[in-house]
Amino acid sequence: MHGRLTGRTPYAERVRSARLVYLNGALVGDVGAAPAFAGALEAVEGYYALQAERPEIHLARRADGAAIPTSLLVPETAADLAKKRASYKEIADLSFGMLGRTPDFINAAVMALGAHSEVLSSDRHASYEDNARNYYDHVCANNLFIGHGAINPQIDRSVSMGGSGHSHAGVKVVGHDSAGITVSGAKMILTLAPLADELLIFNMPGLQPGDEDFALAFAIPVSAPGLKLICRKSFYKPEYSTFDHPLANRFDEIDSYMILEDAFVPWERVFVFRDVARSNAFYDKTYARNHAGHQGIVRGLAKAELAAGVAVRLAEDLGLAGAPAVQEQLGEIASCLELVKALIARSETEATRSEAGVLTPNIVAIQSMRWNFPRMYQRILEIIRSLAPGSMLAAPIDADFAGENGALLTMALTSAKLPARERIQLLNLAWDLVGDAFGQRQLTYEYYHAGEPGRISAGQYKNYDWRQERLSVARSLEP
Amino acid sequence: MHGRLTGRTPYAERVRSARLVYLNGALVGDVGAAPAFAGALEAVEGYYALQAERPEIHLARRADGAAIPTSLLVPETAADLAKKRASYKEIADLSFGMLGRTPDFINAAVMALGAHSEVLSSDRHASYEDNARNYYDHVCANNLFIGHGAINPQIDRSVSMGGSGHSHAGVKVVGHDSAGITVSGAKMILTLAPLADELLIFNMPGLQPGDEDFALAFAIPVSAPGLKLICRKSFYKPEYSTFDHPLANRFDEIDSYMILEDAFVPWERVFVFRDVARSNAFYDKTYARNHAGHQGIVRGLAKAELAAGVAVRLAEDLGLAGAPAVQEQLGEIASCLELVKALIARSETEATRSEAGVLTPNIVAIQSMRWNFPRMYQRILEIIRSLAPGSMLAAPIDADFAGENGALLTMALTSAKLPARERIQLLNLAWDLVGDAFGQRQLTYEYYHAGEPGRISAGQYKNYDWRQERLSVARSLEP
Amino acid sequence: MHGRLTGRTPYAERVRSARLVYLNGALVGDVGAAPAFAGALEAVEGYYALQAERPEIHLARRADGAAIPTSLLVPETAADLAKKRASYKEIADLSFGMLGRTPDFINAAVMALGAHSEVLSSDRHASYEDNARNYYDHVCANNLFIGHGAINPQIDRSVSMGGSGHSHAGVKVVGHDSAGITVSGAKMILTLAPLADELLIFNMPGLQPGDEDFALAFAIPVSAPGLKLICRKSFYKPEYSTFDHPLANRFDEIDSYMILEDAFVPWERVFVFRDVARSNAFYDKTYARNHAGHQGIVRGLAKAELAAGVAVRLAEDLGLAGAPAVQEQLGEIASCLELVKALIARSETEATRSEAGVLTPNIVAIQSMRWNFPRMYQRILEIIRSLAPGSMLAAPIDADFAGENGALLTMALTSAKLPARERIQLLNLAWDLVGDAFGQRQLTYEYYHAGEPGRISAGQYKNYDWRQERLSVARSLEP
Amino acid sequence: MHGRLTGRTPYAERVRSARLVYLNGALVGDVGAAPAFAGALEAVEGYYALQAERPEIHLARRADGAAIPTSLLVPETAADLAKKRASYKEIADLSFGMLGRTPDFINAAVMALGAHSEVLSSDRHASYEDNARNYYDHVCANNLFIGHGAINPQIDRSVSMGGSGHSHAGVKVVGHDSAGITVSGAKMILTLAPLADELLIFNMPGLQPGDEDFALAFAIPVSAPGLKLICRKSFYKPEYSTFDHPLANRFDEIDSYMILEDAFVPWERVFVFRDVARSNAFYDKTYARNHAGHQGIVRGLAKAELAAGVAVRLAEDLGLAGAPAVQEQLGEIASCLELVKALIARSETEATRSEAGVLTPNIVAIQSMRWNFPRMYQRILEIIRSLAPGSMLAAPIDADFAGENGALLTMALTSAKLPARERIQLLNLAWDLVGDAFGQRQLTYEYYHAGEPGRISAGQYKNYDWRQERLSVARSLEP
Repeated sequence: MHGRLTGRTPYAERVRSARLVYLNGALVGDVGAAPAFAGALEAVEGYYALQAERPEIHLARRADGAAIPTSLLVPETAADLAKKRASYKEIADLSFGMLGRTPDFINAAVMALGAHSEVLSSDRHASYEDNARNYYDHVCANNLFIGHGAINPQIDRSVSMGGSGHSHAGVKVVGHDSAGITVSGAKMILTLAPLADELLIFNMPGLQPGDEDFALAFAIPVSAPGLKLICRKSFYKPEYSTFDHPLANRFDEIDSYMILEDAFVPWERVFVFRDVARSNAFYDKTYARNHAGHQGIVRGLAKAELAAGVAVRLAEDLGLAGAPAVQEQLGEIASCLELVKALIARSETEATRSEAGVLTPNIVAIQSMRWNFPRMYQRILEIIRSLAPGSMLAAPIDADFAGENGALLTMALTSAKLPARERIQLLNLAWDLVGDAFGQRQLTYEYYHAGEPGRISAGQYKNYDWRQERLSVARSLEP
Repeated sequence: MHGRLTGRTPYAERVRSARLVYLNGALVGDVGAAPAFAGALEAVEGYYALQAERPEIHLARRADGAAIPTSLLVPETAADLAKKRASYKEIADLSFGMLGRTPDFINAAVMALGAHSEVLSSDRHASYEDNARNYYDHVCANNLFIGHGAINPQIDRSVSMGGSGHSHAGVKVVGHDSAGITVSGAKMILTLAPLADELLIFNMPGLQPGDEDFALAFAIPVSAPGLKLICRKSFYKPEYSTFDHPLANRFDEIDSYMILEDAFVPWERVFVFRDVARSNAFYDKTYARNHAGHQGIVRGLAKAELAAGVAVRLAEDLGLAGAPAVQEQLGEIASCLELVKALIARSETEATRSEAGVLTPNIVAIQSMRWNFPRMYQRILEIIRSLAPGSMLAAPIDADFAGENGALLTMALTSAKLPARERIQLLNLAWDLVGDAFGQRQLTYEYYHAGEPGRISAGQYKNYDWRQERLSVARSLEP
Repeated sequence: MHGRLTGRTPYAERVRSARLVYLNGALVGDVGAAPAFAGALEAVEGYYALQAERPEIHLARRADGAAIPTSLLVPETAADLAKKRASYKEIADLSFGMLGRTPDFINAAVMALGAHSEVLSSDRHASYEDNARNYYDHVCANNLFIGHGAINPQIDRSVSMGGSGHSHAGVKVVGHDSAGITVSGAKMILTLAPLADELLIFNMPGLQPGDEDFALAFAIPVSAPGLKLICRKSFYKPEYSTFDHPLANRFDEIDSYMILEDAFVPWERVFVFRDVARSNAFYDKTYARNHAGHQGIVRGLAKAELAAGVAVRLAEDLGLAGAPAVQEQLGEIASCLELVKALIARSETEATRSEAGVLTPNIVAIQSMRWNFPRMYQRILEIIRSLAPGSMLAAPIDADFAGENGALLTMALTSAKLPARERIQLLNLAWDLVGDAFGQRQLTYEYYHAGEPGRISAGQYKNYDWRQERLSVARSLEP
Repeated sequence: MHGRLTGRTPYAERVRSARLVYLNGALVGDVGAAPAFAGALEAVEGYYALQAERPEIHLARRADGAAIPTSLLVPETAADLAKKRASYKEIADLSFGMLGRTPDFINAAVMALGAHSEVLSSDRHASYEDNARNYYDHVCANNLFIGHGAINPQIDRSVSMGGSGHSHAGVKVVGHDSAGITVSGAKMILTLAPLADELLIFNMPGLQPGDEDFALAFAIPVSAPGLKLICRKSFYKPEYSTFDHPLANRFDEIDSYMILEDAFVPWERVFVFRDVARSNAFYDKTYARNHAGHQGIVRGLAKAELAAGVAVRLAEDLGLAGAPAVQEQLGEIASCLELVKALIARSETEATRSEAGVLTPNIVAIQSMRWNFPRMYQRILEIIRSLAPGSMLAAPIDADFAGENGALLTMALTSAKLPARERIQLLNLAWDLVGDAFGQRQLTYEYYHAGEPGRISAGQYKNYDWRQERLSVARSLEP
């Protein structure tokens, strides 16, 4: 009933293609074999496996009957959005929401770009509109994993990109001919990019006149000559097990710094070329933000559920859940989860149809989540920390249990409520969320992954329909 | 198409019935003629007027065809809940959500009591189950305005009600015979009760063994012998106009302290009699909390909309809306409004059918609002205050504009953005919300009107379905 | 040992001089006889009475042996600052810190202006340096009560004062001749000004080039022709007693909006004339901010002590103080009080000697208080509200106790811990602090009375000596 | 002038004595040679080196003329407290406050125990009073590094220690004879204990009747038979340099879990034996909390200074410091630092003399810091995170600069404001503070290292002198 989707080359092969990925100062020969990437790679493979295992959720059909990942489906009905949500959630649950940039994320955006490519128009070099539409077809046909790079390095915020004269304040066009463009420069925080097939490079809104050379959008294979990915410090700890680090040692979705040196992009893969207005329109006016945001808030729920579960388990297993103050905090967490679920639902029930007929998740609901969710999530972490501040920092490691002190520790740390190893593993899970670099990067991600929060909130003010509110004021002042 | 609902006696007449209401230390002869009650009275009359003006929203039919207020409708379908919501909202908009205890509030609870009266059972004195069902019929048939008294005076929290030996720690049975019961004691914060027809007297959950004498629920007319209502200080300021106090001088829904002295209640109006367990079950197990709560969160939206509108208008009219930090704050308000709307929707989409077949708004969504809404609302007030802290406190009054300085003030206080009087009126509106006793009582109401917040949140923890969260923890710890 | 200080005319006479004060839309014939001003007037009279009652604290001597109020003393030693602090505190305790603009506040600034008048320099019209010095002598000699007006009306913040073309965006020079200057325009939030002898009119820093016409500072008698004070809505409630409103009905230090219409100021009383730079230097470079700020933080302590006492009393008298969560909150209040005391001490121990030899309270400590104190104080109010949210709104009034229900209420509201009237009065006190307009204006005052908080905090960054912090960073990065 | 203090055996030798320390699951043969301990060891050695380098600060004399570390000085004058503060600060600056348990911390407590040992009394087994006094002499004479273990493992908080029947809910006496006692059980969070000479084992207040077997205090050498220290996961990352982790790779003051198996303690080293009341009095009534707390708040300042410096440097070096909102945040940090300094000063100026004549830092000031400091410090971290959320996660590592991409990265990441490596190192420093497990453990430490915050705050309520506050309430209610 559901078609089987087969990219021409399986991902497991594609990911082992040559690419210049640097980790811990050295070139990673084969990202498919690097221990630091193993957990994330398993999750991406899990993403593809779900397409085979549960095609009714994870596969959809194009008008021509071709099977595509659900994230690439152009949604036209509430059921389409619901199906996309179901797919996003199951994918997110593979990593408990810890992987933010699984393929479905940018797929949702690529779909929106394709469907609203008229925003991109054309010039004498190319029809960017056609390019975007064709790129969508290309991603569909090959079931690709597209990463992306949108954030320009924060070199010096007191000057504009163009005004800085700095060659690496972003990605810059350094030449073009009839075949394509040549680009150099840098982007930062390319998450999970070392494991991607191709990268979508663009800018978030905010470019100024004078930034033309940086006003670009294009797609480029990870393996393209001139493209290097320098990974940040890894949160994978080779000296510890997944018992010791249940999350950090499985789900570090490595961020990387991308440098381009005279990399070539054929016109077919260029979507914006030296055009500040279209660069600023790229993410919002194509509704890429809406569709990727829909994925994002569903994924956020998966993360919140794990954190909430940790808080409840800690409270109950450490014998704290009888205290009224603790119950109040756990209830607060429940009230937060409810908000998240309510916003996800609302992003769908208040979806509107775009000019192109695409059922578009409501951006006000999505941005409300973007503002509120990080604060809620941080609050959950603070509650977790307050429940077991000392115990998390007093946990013996896996190897201790295996060693000469194993029996002693097992005896000393077993309570009437749960056995020692289970207790310690739960505390390790808590620490990975609230204390480990892994967890703090996860928190930082929630605050900042969709752009500068102040700018998002200002946009919310500008986009919001204040008619009812203004009417209330006017009526309240009537004599 | 919609029936016309006529109580046997119109409210305007009923409200002028004899009753012992004390305001500013004196007996109010006729509450219908007291200036301090005029605004609230107008709103209650507006409530009844809406039934005539917009019956398609505000009237519904019982199975027997009788027309009843929509708030008394037993909801069976999503459309029923939507209709109730629409009715609640239009009623709330009459007072911008400032009147919390309009008749629809407790009507929703009376409906739930009637539909789930089996919770109340019977004993050798009476069938409380029948009493509750009949009371619903009575309220329907007469289109009454039922106030209520649920909060026991905070005499000394270090002792229990029963243990305190204090006669006025609540309402207490002091005698009973075959006709009914005799009660004495006190309840506090009977909001809008001076304008009601009858009062529903009960306890929120939390009574302890030993509190039997206080473990009562019954209905009693406001005019019953032995019932006195002592009003708190009024926020209505006779020396100022509604220009000066756009809200305080129109919508003070006076709270009162009720004293009962040997008041008689016939068995027909008794719903709980000396039964701690049923007293504790009264509000929750009958789903009165769910239905009244549904009204409450819809009403909250009306209040938030006015406050949000004031913030936006102030920012724009005082020339502040261009500042990024102000835009960020206004966007935060939009994100809060969206949360409120999302929770209201969710309380309905996640409604469940009770044993009695009533479509019951989801309590988790409602209690999430109860936890989050006061904090959001307080945040809106803080933003308003930060926009015009000085200007609110520098406003000339209505009489100044009318007096010798009128022209001068008009000139001095008119800006390119708006004329002086409009500007001052807007600032007065803002001050009523954030600074006046009226506004602080409104804020206090949001925090506490549904019960002690810590207890509500603890209940949220206990009621929440944590299966998904526990599952996430379990899966994350799998090897 | 301490001289007796006698202004030529006693304050009680001076305050009854002719002045154009408008309250509730009407000209107040005699501010000394207006009930709404009675409480504040009593406090100002108390200020003068203290000079007679406790001259060892409240009087000091100038070099020439003349007795002056301690607030006018030029401090040269730690003992001088300690004496000033003691005087400020006793004056503040008269009103529990609720009157922010008692004469000692601006006296401290006038002293600083006199001592550092070289900042004001001179031009071809006048020696402003001499004027300021002479003004100090004048205030000393006459033991005056100087009010002040510094805040320009918030007409339209999107345009500058000068650029707005608005005649009442501040006070503006409209003419000058050899005798003096003629000024028109407006200032807002002139606190307690109706009861003052003279007003010091100036701008807080922040004027821009182009604002020259508004760049003025001068002194003017309250009775000057062309000067009108329009009072905001009064928080004094004629229909209630001081039992009902223990603070609001005694300590409303009315704010007013001042309009000047072609008022004349002789050159001798002009301190800044059409000079943006000196206008911006007026408050900070003369250390007026330091000395007035010293008074301000000492006064703040008096307010915090009352609020803290209310919290403790409520917790204990309502039987809540045994709960760990309540104890934690009360401890938090104690920790806040301690911070306040520590900052006051530090403002003195870290005082520095100005070029003029004046021992100058440390501005970093003072501004730390300005940032932190409002937040702490708001937190105390929130704790108070949480302790008695309902009871505060269920209080019968004074007249109820005197009336037919008096005995009944006395019985019903007396607990084992305290009698009914005492309990209600305590709740009334709490409500005046947290709920009444009086209390919210007090809170607003703490946030904003010393200027825009963001600007104050930015100034704190710019003024702070970051050497130790930079050194720590540098050392931590050494190999 | 300052004597030279020489313990009989130098610390560098003592630390290499045999001890059962387990790290990463294996017995550490020689803690003096373990890379994970190297940084902390260097800091402890730095502590001893300071005694030689700056004896005028770090050495003091006993009455008998013997030189002792300043932390062991019995303070009698303000100058003594100031000297102790100076010593604490220089020691803290060695690690920027990151090492909380340097020898001076517990030294201050040991001094207090010795001086107020009468609290400990005696029984038929021993004079605990003499034992404590002698132990102080012993620590002085040998210039020892005493670690400590006070926190009982959080096995199951729903049951008491004694009631749980759990052998490892704390340290328990399992036998005694005329020579001493035999103890078994566990303590958690023994910070820096692997590098200590001896451990002081005791309980924080809070034991209940029934906990007698756990109600002990004693000293024991780290090398004692039956004592094992199991270290938590190390934050030292062998694969990264101190450029990559400027703090985590230098200052991990490893926490450990201590197990005792039938360890013997001679009566001479026992301070509390099966006595719940004295166990609860041990830390507070001897003023150990005051003196150790004094060290703690001075050390906190060192940490805050580094964090503040990082915020200022980031803002300025990334070109953000011109933004008003950023300036406001940096000013807030300055205001926080000022609070810390003010409290430290107040703890000394408000010191009181104990019965034994010891000048005792004021506990109210210290506990105010304990409540407020973690919140302030967390706020500084949040500001840091907001300044560079992405850049911290986009930093290449030391080895990248050394490798084939070094020149490229240097070019790409150098700005007009600072060179690439300096910039990245600053970001690494920021990440260690806010994102790395090291930094989160530091934050957790500030919240919890002195005991359960709620209990500390409740104690603050109970200890505070509320007379002035009660007086204000009483006076405000006078007619």
